[in-house]
Amino acid sequence: MATDIRTAELKEPVDVAEYLFRRLKEVGIKSIHGVPGDYNLVALDYVEKNGLRWVGNCNELNAGYAADGYARINGISALVTTFGVGELSAVNAIAGAYSEYVPIVHIVGVPSTVSQRNGMLLHHTLGNGDFKVFAHMSAQISTATAALNDPAEIPTLIDNAVRECYVKSRPVYLTLPTDMVQKKVEGKRLETKLDLSFPENDEGAEEYAVEVVLKYLHDAKSPVILVDACAIRHRALDEVHALVEKTGLPVFVTPMGKSAIDETIPNYGGVYAGDGSNPGVRERVESSDLILSIGAVKSDFNTAGFTYRISQLSTIDFHSYGIKVRYSEYPGVRMNGVLRKVTERIDTSKLKIQKSPEPPSNTVPQKVEEQSTETILQSWFWPKLGQWLREDDVVITETGTSNFGIWETRFPKGVTAISQVLWGSIGYATGATQGAALAAKEKGLKRTILFTGDGSFQLTGQEVSTMLRNDLNPILFVLCNDGYTIERYIHGMESSYNDIQPWRYKDLPAAFGAKEGQAKTYVVKTRKEVEDLFADKEFSDPESKVLRFVELYIPKEDAPTTLKLVAEASARNNAKLE
Amino acid sequence: MATDIRTAELKEPVDVAEYLFRRLKEVGIKSIHGVPGDYNLVALDYVEKNGLRWVGNCNELNAGYAADGYARINGISALVTTFGVGELSAVNAIAGAYSEYVPIVHIVGVPSTVSQRNGMLLHHTLGNGDFKVFAHMSAQISTATAALNDPAEIPTLIDNAVRECYVKSRPVYLTLPTDMVQKKVEGKRLETKLDLSFPENDEGAEEYAVEVVLKYLHDAKSPVILVDACAIRHRALDEVHALVEKTGLPVFVTPMGKSAIDETIPNYGGVYAGDGSNPGVRERVESSDLILSIGAVKSDFNTAGFTYRISQLSTIDFHSYGIKVRYSEYPGVRMNGVLRKVTERIDTSKLKIQKSPEPPSNTVPQKVEEQSTETILQSWFWPKLGQWLREDDVVITETGTSNFGIWETRFPKGVTAISQVLWGSIGYATGATQGAALAAKEKGLKRTILFTGDGSFQLTGQEVSTMLRNDLNPILFVLCNDGYTIERYIHGMESSYNDIQPWRYKDLPAAFGAKEGQAKTYVVKTRKEVEDLFADKEFSDPESKVLRFVELYIPKEDAPTTLKLVAEASARNNAKLE
Repeated sequence: MATDIRTAELKEPVDVAEYLFRRLKEVGIKSIHGVPGDYNLVALDYVEKNGLRWVGNCNELNAGYAADGYARINGISALVTTFGVGELSAVNAIAGAYSEYVPIVHIVGVPSTVSQRNGMLLHHTLGNGDFKVFAHMSAQISTATAALNDPAEIPTLIDNAVRECYVKSRPVYLTLPTDMVQKKVEGKRLETKLDLSFPENDEGAEEYAVEVVLKYLHDAKSPVILVDACAIRHRALDEVHALVEKTGLPVFVTPMGKSAIDETIPNYGGVYAGDGSNPGVRERVESSDLILSIGAVKSDFNTAGFTYRISQLSTIDFHSYGIKVRYSEYPGVRMNGVLRKVTERIDTSKLKIQKSPEPPSNTVPQKVEEQSTETILQSWFWPKLGQWLREDDVVITETGTSNFGIWETRFPKGVTAISQVLWGSIGYATGATQGAALAAKEKGLKRTILFTGDGSFQLTGQEVSTMLRNDLNPILFVLCNDGYTIERYIHGMESSYNDIQPWRYKDLPAAFGAKEGQAKTYVVKTRKEVEDLFADKEFSDPESKVLRFVELYIPKEDAPTTLKLVAEASARNNAKLE
Repeated sequence: MATDIRTAELKEPVDVAEYLFRRLKEVGIKSIHGVPGDYNLVALDYVEKNGLRWVGNCNELNAGYAADGYARINGISALVTTFGVGELSAVNAIAGAYSEYVPIVHIVGVPSTVSQRNGMLLHHTLGNGDFKVFAHMSAQISTATAALNDPAEIPTLIDNAVRECYVKSRPVYLTLPTDMVQKKVEGKRLETKLDLSFPENDEGAEEYAVEVVLKYLHDAKSPVILVDACAIRHRALDEVHALVEKTGLPVFVTPMGKSAIDETIPNYGGVYAGDGSNPGVRERVESSDLILSIGAVKSDFNTAGFTYRISQLSTIDFHSYGIKVRYSEYPGVRMNGVLRKVTERIDTSKLKIQKSPEPPSNTVPQKVEEQSTETILQSWFWPKLGQWLREDDVVITETGTSNFGIWETRFPKGVTAISQVLWGSIGYATGATQGAALAAKEKGLKRTILFTGDGSFQLTGQEVSTMLRNDLNPILFVLCNDGYTIERYIHGMESSYNDIQPWRYKDLPAAFGAKEGQAKTYVVKTRKEVEDLFADKEFSDPESKVLRFVELYIPKEDAPTTLKLVAEASARNNAKLE
């Protein structure tokens, strides 16, 4: 048989599944998310055998969210699902990762190549013999897809897919048929590490762009830097940090760029989001005659409803796919190389540095502090939170009041913020917290902290079980405000469809099987109780091994000012007639 | 403006959303499943206004499963989700409905036509200005799709979609942009009810097929009837029942056809599933010289791993799309009309009726009963269950041990069984129970009873919250057997990836907000406790308003014999080499 001859020719035969998992390990993945299913079971035998952890999520959507959170901390992640039923459940999470440039290797265990060829009427099919329909669906939300159907090409397909995933920072989709899992492929290839570097820019084009950028920079009267999501997601933060440090230019972040810049440095100016900007920031950014806009994603929520007032004439855009100086485009010139050279060559003596505005200092606004109420309001909570956060915290905020409230929180050094501002799928944050907490633990980061709403938590709350199962100890805040407050502000403030079933949230860790001492729960209803909680050494302890779960009560009609602004813009946009 | 002129010409202007929901009500939908999201909120204002109930599920996958369960009891259902994030979460449920012929009208609230035309960078998009990508994905699992973008054609599109959904018994997909919700359309059309009848067969072809069927039937020595899923899903049960009653022919059901036939009639013979058949059934069916196979779906799980031993030479296949007599095909001749005429014209004096085998009588096999153990085994439980079930119960079994175990339960008259044997998505049953219980309540059916496993329950368990929120009172059995037992039998009996986090299941109804007296929980670990539970009048009471939640403990290595058989076949099939 041909297969045997091929196997005999291999210098170091390894099974396909081993090859795959060793590559994943090589690029830095330590844990695999997913749910077992009959078409992936044999492959799962190879996870632990190759020194990886199997997480075992409650369902595939949650597993996808978790893989997304894991990738945002770890750099890349992997998800294993089963044909049809499993993979389709994860599609929303994968689309979110595609939208927000998060690299997930999605491996789908599929029926054997023999069954596929014969069009067998198997379970988990549409009953029509079409085994490719789900792959066609996933192709639309994947940067690359590959069917691992032939041992002769499998190693190349795996290598290309993993590399694409990392370099493009987007999901890839691999189908692994049951009869391919144990086929032999060339293990000797594994001695050569995958090349994960970005392709080099064309030197002439890069040089040209660099000189143009330098010219404008040296001439500008009040240049500023604005850092957005793609600077993080396309791995340009080292270059950005070097530029910020060397130049001392005022630097701002967008909501999706939050935590890209050390918020304790003197030239950090705060969050810019058009009309939703922090005090003083809008004037400062919009009056600048040169904005170095790095990795911009000008989506509705990220721009407070398209309220930027920045001219392209005073903008240089840096992207993974090219540079744009005013209206001159340099397609294919990736930002990383350009930023490096600009930093190297800049003549700082020529730079005109205007002082940054004072960023929010986590002081509760005086008029809020003076209210004679013990009610916890969003305007009070988010600055207070900033006082409690610590260096290197991982902070995850859910779409809703939390990912707008966090704009008001000034972070200590080293904080990593995660929120899904563009895709905005509620339920994401709880799943992502499981993955982020695991990646953080593997990297030695101490605290992973979630802020979600009660409505959002209900979508994916069972992932608290997966946190417990994997001995993770994040700090979970469920903001209880009786339903979908972000939606109330868009439409239906009092409508019953924005209500939810009132859960006894804090009883869930125990119901999800927390062992004695594994989880501790808190109920916080007043400002005093928040302050006491934040002062509680045991609660705040980075060395704590306990999962901490906080029910925090906020009025249902209360929301961050920025959320109200964005919601109004959304409602207007939804109603807009031709 | 053109729109105004059009509106002025309308005899009875109604808003698009009103038109849509009135059509849904007309075809029998009383409750709408789904999750609110910013692109569907204004449409949701019309739900209650038009006399429909808004269910408000915890997440969209669960909502999709619930809509599936609702449709299986009610005849058709509707699901409302929001663009991107919402609809994609429901894709697995919709694919299941497509696979198993369940009619769901899926309505997706999408950004305004203006935003779409302008390619705006909105949240819930992939960030690439492509607003059609999700529709393309759903098109592959929908029998029809329509974009409601132009008031001039919206009523026709809605009418066609609802009709297609019902007649083809499969999901349809409608996108409703925010700016179309309140556009005016012709309400006068609503005075003409939708024609939901099946297209008539070509008379000549139908007559011909009927005569051929009659000839074979009159000549056969031991004809039998075998009823499968599509007889139910394509609404041919009235015709089947008439045929069964008039002829007295021995009648069998497949696993997917279970509950299609009154199991208390004398000619009912039991479940046929090849090697997985009930005692005596296999011999009887396979020795028949003429099998009237009605609505067959010969999938792996439905045939106990493709173990039918039936020749096409002794088969007449009846389908929604045509008839096949031995090898002669009659495409386009729908079964319903043919069955009606065959029943009318059959000469029962010419029929040779061989007695049916005795169907399982819900007696626990003697060797099982005599075991000196108090442990609840599957072989003991499922016949016992048959003793406890009542007329008109709705019984939902999850993919896993439950939907194999139920083969051993003989139903009282009027029972409706729901299980997703072909698509087989675990987690389905809990969501489907919410929808089925609601539809049952609306129809005056008293008891909806779920059997799911602990592993499956973890995927979608929060839908117990939706049951409580909607004042539903099903009886829920969670079979606690420490993980994915069906998968253990396929591969990895002791593998940790088939384990799950041990939950305190019975604490969940309270955590999900059950009010005082709204839910009652039970823990059942011995045969005696099962018997006591079944004898408990309060527990069994069809008039009870209490949600009843049972933790029932079964050993993890125990499974119905048929499941073991099918799992072995699956494992062999997965490993099969070219």
